[in-house]
Amino acid sequence: MKKIYIGMLGCGTVGTGVAKLLIRQKALIESRLGASLILKHVADIDIARDRGIFFDEGVLITDASKVVNDPQIDIVVEMIGGQGIAKELILKAIKNGKQIITANKALLAMHGSELFKASEANHTDLAYEASVGGCMPIIKSLRESLIANQIQAMTGILNGTCNFILSKITVEHCTFHEALAIAQAKGFAETDPTLDVEGYDTAHKLALLNAIAYGMKVNYNDIYIEGITRITPLDIEFARQFGYKIKLLAISKNRGGTVEARVHPAMIPFDNLLSEINGSLNAITVVGDAVGDIILYGHGAGMMPTASAVVSDIVDLARNLLNGAVGRVPALSFQTDAIKNIPVLPIDELRTHYYFRFAAIDHPGVLSKIAGVLGDHNISIKSVHQKGRKSDGAVPVVMMTHIAQEASVKKALAEISALEIVTGKPVLIRIEDKNGEDGN
Amino acid sequence: MKKIYIGMLGCGTVGTGVAKLLIRQKALIESRLGASLILKHVADIDIARDRGIFFDEGVLITDASKVVNDPQIDIVVEMIGGQGIAKELILKAIKNGKQIITANKALLAMHGSELFKASEANHTDLAYEASVGGCMPIIKSLRESLIANQIQAMTGILNGTCNFILSKITVEHCTFHEALAIAQAKGFAETDPTLDVEGYDTAHKLALLNAIAYGMKVNYNDIYIEGITRITPLDIEFARQFGYKIKLLAISKNRGGTVEARVHPAMIPFDNLLSEINGSLNAITVVGDAVGDIILYGHGAGMMPTASAVVSDIVDLARNLLNGAVGRVPALSFQTDAIKNIPVLPIDELRTHYYFRFAAIDHPGVLSKIAGVLGDHNISIKSVHQKGRKSDGAVPVVMMTHIAQEASVKKALAEISALEIVTGKPVLIRIEDKNGEDGN
Repeated sequence: MKKIYIGMLGCGTVGTGVAKLLIRQKALIESRLGASLILKHVADIDIARDRGIFFDEGVLITDASKVVNDPQIDIVVEMIGGQGIAKELILKAIKNGKQIITANKALLAMHGSELFKASEANHTDLAYEASVGGCMPIIKSLRESLIANQIQAMTGILNGTCNFILSKITVEHCTFHEALAIAQAKGFAETDPTLDVEGYDTAHKLALLNAIAYGMKVNYNDIYIEGITRITPLDIEFARQFGYKIKLLAISKNRGGTVEARVHPAMIPFDNLLSEINGSLNAITVVGDAVGDIILYGHGAGMMPTASAVVSDIVDLARNLLNGAVGRVPALSFQTDAIKNIPVLPIDELRTHYYFRFAAIDHPGVLSKIAGVLGDHNISIKSVHQKGRKSDGAVPVVMMTHIAQEASVKKALAEISALEIVTGKPVLIRIEDKNGEDGN
Repeated sequence: MKKIYIGMLGCGTVGTGVAKLLIRQKALIESRLGASLILKHVADIDIARDRGIFFDEGVLITDASKVVNDPQIDIVVEMIGGQGIAKELILKAIKNGKQIITANKALLAMHGSELFKASEANHTDLAYEASVGGCMPIIKSLRESLIANQIQAMTGILNGTCNFILSKITVEHCTFHEALAIAQAKGFAETDPTLDVEGYDTAHKLALLNAIAYGMKVNYNDIYIEGITRITPLDIEFARQFGYKIKLLAISKNRGGTVEARVHPAMIPFDNLLSEINGSLNAITVVGDAVGDIILYGHGAGMMPTASAVVSDIVDLARNLLNGAVGRVPALSFQTDAIKNIPVLPIDELRTHYYFRFAAIDHPGVLSKIAGVLGDHNISIKSVHQKGRKSDGAVPVVMMTHIAQEASVKKALAEISALEIVTGKPVLIRIEDKNGEDGN
């Protein structure tokens, strides 16, 4: 049986899962692949820690350069994370003609162009299925299964930490900080949760998906990003009363010459299947012009689900090696010369439905004043609700709008915020209804 | 730009969709594939019909043998259906070294072994993504993305016609025959709906999925099959009251040395996402030992969604041709010598939860008599409900059981059926709760 040699850089949670799968599922993988995957070297600073795996003598080493320079190693799996040494080692491995696999979305979102270019120039494959959506085969589905589709939109719950926290706030009516503490205690959130809760991780993933869906450059910096730190149980409860759930969404829409690309908490109606995705699960809806909606759902993180995606990449690249077919599918789905500079729609030009919550003095005429300002900015109100108990002398006034433009909304909210009858900062949450469903 | 020549056999609904995609998305496909797909010949008996496509002179022909014998044609797409001429033409095309694509699940379920063997012997690819789940990439996901997983179970809604009919009965409280008539009027059901409503089509698909998931032979004949023709609005309403929906499911479970493989209407709880799949949509849950649950959802039929899957196969095989990598992924996921004879668990040995409905004389002691028979057969009752209006002098008695064995259930129901206090045939619907969730 032919052998393919694997070297792994970093053996943290996911790396450990990859090693476990390669060792435990050896016979199963061979019966499918028809070749043997040999994990020759795993480089990690900490080789003493018990990972629950029996590595053969000499497999676990501390010197990463031994992995990228070993002439026998065919495929290098980068599991270090971050943008420093990981990038250097990948570039070195590419130069040495290795096939590359990574789950490092931050690195690809920030330095993807350089890495993909290097990989193409050296005629090696660079695979990254595990970087988006854990075990969900979203990269493969976009690159291979939806190949005959103009992708029209994608809407994803792509960060398990945020989804866990929002689910907790929803069920337990706790604050964001209480929910975060629970997530941290359960290992669903990092000690420094910034990357997750501020939406950056979701945006890294969206940048990659946009590139392969639309044939555009990986443009993380153009994505509008808003995290979940200001989401309150009150807004979640109002959302519920109106038939919505609040989720942190990655949203992109193909608008012809431009693309909407944004990450923010959004209200989605109960009849949208994404509203049912709770806890640390991930899901994504892709709309293609031929297929209509397709949805993938699965564990977006965790040792074994993510490792499963990494090993699927290993087998894919092994198959390319065994068949002399390296470069069979372009890394970014499109041929390099077909990748375009498609601009992202500035957030100010977004047109969507909005939910506002104002803390207003309980006083006649308040509503008409707020409505007046909105009217001045061409924002048409769909429904108004003045509900709940007074707190600090103010009552919550909640409004849902027809489709309005973000720039006008911002101006209107700034004006309303300055009114004496309004206390505190107005809350704005965008609503993801079916587009233009209400005709305006 | 390199050219790959396609020949198509049959140009009905899906075939027309394939031709439309190849013509209309030509530039998009080229920008992804880096090669040109040329639809050289389309053979159909009826070349006069307006399909809304402009075929170049000489493309549309009546002689199918011209397609399979044309030395320039690389890939033959079989869109005829049925098991007669379709099989002959595929075998002829394989003999001529053509790559084959089909969406013909009936053919593959009945004659797959012969066809896959011929394809392997002639070193050609035989792809069939569109045969299961329309546009959902379930074949690719099982064969490539879940490669490092022991598949533990699959539960699918794989027939849009049945799902449409059951959704109609649920929403409109009509009979099966009324719902079928609506489905036929809307084009969701054939004039002869047997293949769909009796569950055969779903079983064809399950036979293929089982083969690629578990590495077993395509064994359509071993699958237990029960259709939806006896589902009544009354049972759907009872199901709803108990927190369940009724769906026609394809169910398979890996029981170690054996596999459960069955197609029948089943009750699934509201918190199972499959219960939310309405109308003609399809969805499937796959459980893998590394990934846990993953779900795919999408249009399981229809011209363009199915055509999208066919074209994804065309591009896949074109990539193999362009890279000299024919046979890169084994047709049935496993290497031929690794495919085993895994027996299917006889339905009598099934152990699951059951819903029963009896029409019983409204009379004291009835319940204890029925319960007595069930007890004699070791069937433990979880809940009993005697509800609703009397009709023909009988009232419905509904029971949900703990886990029981099918053979005992059959015997018990036969005995109960013979009781004078019971009129008509008892109704039995299997329940798909999480396995053994109630501990017995």
